[in-house]
Amino acid sequence: MAEAPLAALGQDRPLVLVSNRGPVSFVVPDGGGEPVARRGAGGLVSALGPLLRDTGVTWVAAAMSAGDEVVARRGVTEAEGYRIRLLAFEPDTWSGHYDEVCNEALWFVHHGLWDPVYEPSWSSQWMDGPWAAHRRVNRAFAEAVAEDAPPGAVVLIQDYHLCMTAPVLRRTRPDLTLVHFSHTPFAPPDWLRMLPAGARAELIEGLGAHHRCGFHTRRWAEDFEASCRAQGVVPPAVFVAPLGPDIGDLERTAASQEFATALSELDRMVGDRDFVVRVDRIELSKNLLRGFLAFESMLENQPERHGRVVFGAYCYPSRLGVDAYDRYHRSVLEVVERVNRRFGNPDWQPIHYDPVDDYPRSMAALARADVVVVNPIRDGLNLVAKEAALLNGRHAQLVLSPEAGAWEELSALAWRSDPFDVDQTAGAIAEALDVAGDERVRRAETWRTAAAHRTPEAWLADQVVAAGDGRAGPGRS
Amino acid sequence: MAEAPLAALGQDRPLVLVSNRGPVSFVVPDGGGEPVARRGAGGLVSALGPLLRDTGVTWVAAAMSAGDEVVARRGVTEAEGYRIRLLAFEPDTWSGHYDEVCNEALWFVHHGLWDPVYEPSWSSQWMDGPWAAHRRVNRAFAEAVAEDAPPGAVVLIQDYHLCMTAPVLRRTRPDLTLVHFSHTPFAPPDWLRMLPAGARAELIEGLGAHHRCGFHTRRWAEDFEASCRAQGVVPPAVFVAPLGPDIGDLERTAASQEFATALSELDRMVGDRDFVVRVDRIELSKNLLRGFLAFESMLENQPERHGRVVFGAYCYPSRLGVDAYDRYHRSVLEVVERVNRRFGNPDWQPIHYDPVDDYPRSMAALARADVVVVNPIRDGLNLVAKEAALLNGRHAQLVLSPEAGAWEELSALAWRSDPFDVDQTAGAIAEALDVAGDERVRRAETWRTAAAHRTPEAWLADQVVAAGDGRAGPGRS
Repeated sequence: MAEAPLAALGQDRPLVLVSNRGPVSFVVPDGGGEPVARRGAGGLVSALGPLLRDTGVTWVAAAMSAGDEVVARRGVTEAEGYRIRLLAFEPDTWSGHYDEVCNEALWFVHHGLWDPVYEPSWSSQWMDGPWAAHRRVNRAFAEAVAEDAPPGAVVLIQDYHLCMTAPVLRRTRPDLTLVHFSHTPFAPPDWLRMLPAGARAELIEGLGAHHRCGFHTRRWAEDFEASCRAQGVVPPAVFVAPLGPDIGDLERTAASQEFATALSELDRMVGDRDFVVRVDRIELSKNLLRGFLAFESMLENQPERHGRVVFGAYCYPSRLGVDAYDRYHRSVLEVVERVNRRFGNPDWQPIHYDPVDDYPRSMAALARADVVVVNPIRDGLNLVAKEAALLNGRHAQLVLSPEAGAWEELSALAWRSDPFDVDQTAGAIAEALDVAGDERVRRAETWRTAAAHRTPEAWLADQVVAAGDGRAGPGRS
Repeated sequence: MAEAPLAALGQDRPLVLVSNRGPVSFVVPDGGGEPVARRGAGGLVSALGPLLRDTGVTWVAAAMSAGDEVVARRGVTEAEGYRIRLLAFEPDTWSGHYDEVCNEALWFVHHGLWDPVYEPSWSSQWMDGPWAAHRRVNRAFAEAVAEDAPPGAVVLIQDYHLCMTAPVLRRTRPDLTLVHFSHTPFAPPDWLRMLPAGARAELIEGLGAHHRCGFHTRRWAEDFEASCRAQGVVPPAVFVAPLGPDIGDLERTAASQEFATALSELDRMVGDRDFVVRVDRIELSKNLLRGFLAFESMLENQPERHGRVVFGAYCYPSRLGVDAYDRYHRSVLEVVERVNRRFGNPDWQPIHYDPVDDYPRSMAALARADVVVVNPIRDGLNLVAKEAALLNGRHAQLVLSPEAGAWEELSALAWRSDPFDVDQTAGAIAEALDVAGDERVRRAETWRTAAAHRTPEAWLADQVVAAGDGRAGPGRS
């Protein structure tokens, strides 16, 4: 199996996948005993897992569970059609790397989320603690790849957690072709400057050591190139490869009993009213707050909509216990409650805010929507903006922020929402609700076509093709 | 006098200066009667006023006082060697234009000061109210210039308050050559996008209608060009013309009795200790907070400095009563008080925080300093970073943020302060305190030379020369 090429991708070199989370996670059974494999969590695994099963690919990831840690001690392990290598870290190393560097510093810098008058405020302890932990984790991944990658392999390194493995690998394994793909936006120079000088230099040098760097849109690629130049580094060759939805997976969800139940519950709740929907992680960059303010403004200015429209917001919690996120969630709840108090009545609750992670219900809401709102401050791609089109059969309209990576592909059919402009967004939602006839149908059909244009297969193939174009690797000099 | 050319500048065309504040302000005497002219306030007037006196230049500015409003009704008025045209506005128009658009929206966008998760949040009321007021003020300036500018004049329009006069003037007065100079940084595309779409389009079209646009540094010029392109506008020709200090004015201050008194007070306060100094408006972009945190970190890590160093901070209040500024001032005071409580003793107060606008004392502090700290988040130029060198005779060292416009001219001799990195800044202050011998002297002398290199005359001349290169104007087609 280790020899099985990714023939479907025209790939004749072995493949190594490197990501924060692995395709499966191991659970130690209640009574103890051998860890059992379960499907891993996260969007990246959903997109890539099915494609890479039984292909002989080696997948290097961090251990997330107690079961994973048992498996990590065994080196490369075969499970569920994958060659898996899990890496276990000390809790301090992991929290420095993951919580403080990835989820805070890097996530904030790439999405532009800091309040610069007060944050960030770096100390040397941060460089010696969390940043050093981040460096150690990247180095451990590089060492695992160096040990386990077959000769001449193509190594696909995923996302912003793992930008600094390449310099080590260029030295220890010059036979490998190194491709990095960023699922987030990339910080332009004026934001990257907010990181400590040492950290931003290592980050750019780390990415710059890949043979190719990929992004969801041209814009993030250009921000990356500009940030390389601002650091005095010649940018590596970049490529643009937007991800698309897994159509088969959506079809299976839509055929499930849970989905059918959720849909009929929604039918009862919405009735013959208009249905505005958003599906988002509760995340600072997603701009929930201004989305609800826009809905409030619409109700304030258009009393004829009272009782005639419902906003269903399916927002699953994230980073609970982190101050900035808890404060944000409280602000969101305050606006939701105010709007419902101000405009609601016993027969009509304007906003149904559902902060529960219920995947079939979220998908059913997208299927039932008349308007889908995706208004992030900044977002790597936003797959919901594509999935909704494939689930929806009601000629729903998309209200989309140009700051979502998906804008590049969907701008022709979307109703633009300027994410900082509450009344402009209110106007976009109202227009999207009201558009009728041919225009409504044309936009909905264009949306469906555009959303289906890119598949996970095509996205993965682009990374492999980029590796083939790479300037190093076996047979090249 | 109206014919007197600016011969010293090689300028044979009449000149019109347009700015928010005029070179003089009129005061109605206590008992009533004819308004009396006084020197106007603000850095721009300090730099330009003396140069343009008795040159026949026409100066168009807003009425700021009751006396100004009396004069505004008379049209062009001769006073103190200027041809002055003052424009009076209704209080609502003025506060919308000045407080809400200029001081809030435009200042924040060019300096990157928003907390994007919560602010800004635009409404159509903002476009119809403050932004419309801003547009009216710009139009009134354009109409005044159209009425009063001599044929074929060169019009030098100053600063971010007045970016939208040019489109009107291009239509009504095609004989004029229009030069704009920005005293602030300019927002790169990712920040400009935070303004409402209509506002940013008008702003860029307004600036784009000038024959030349000038900036203090190459970097702000490039941010402006990038923002033009992001708006689909071909940028006008730009020029870079950093302002320099008024050496004569500094010499007069340094020869004054107030200065001598302040200096001997400082001598008593500082004694034989090291003296770290900052002179700033209390302004979010100036980064006072992290400056004091850096000083605290230095004291924490270097107990040998206890009792041996004093930080004198001469910070004059600004925008009092504005929430964001009041909150900032409270945060600053908290840190100052904490540091003094933590480290101070009856013989030694580590930080002397002096939030009083006392110009001679501030200048005396720069003269008495061993290290001058200028660590803004973002700053158009920062003239203090140059003035200090000319006042100081003690081989003081400059700790400077690369985000100050003056960095381009002073990077060779300054100790770099990364404005978001508290411990890096602490290290820069410590190094600047400790550097001795030839290196200290070399840096101080290089600083003095670099700081004296640019004068207000040269800066003004560059604007006039830029106009000469301008693509329109009399005698051109």
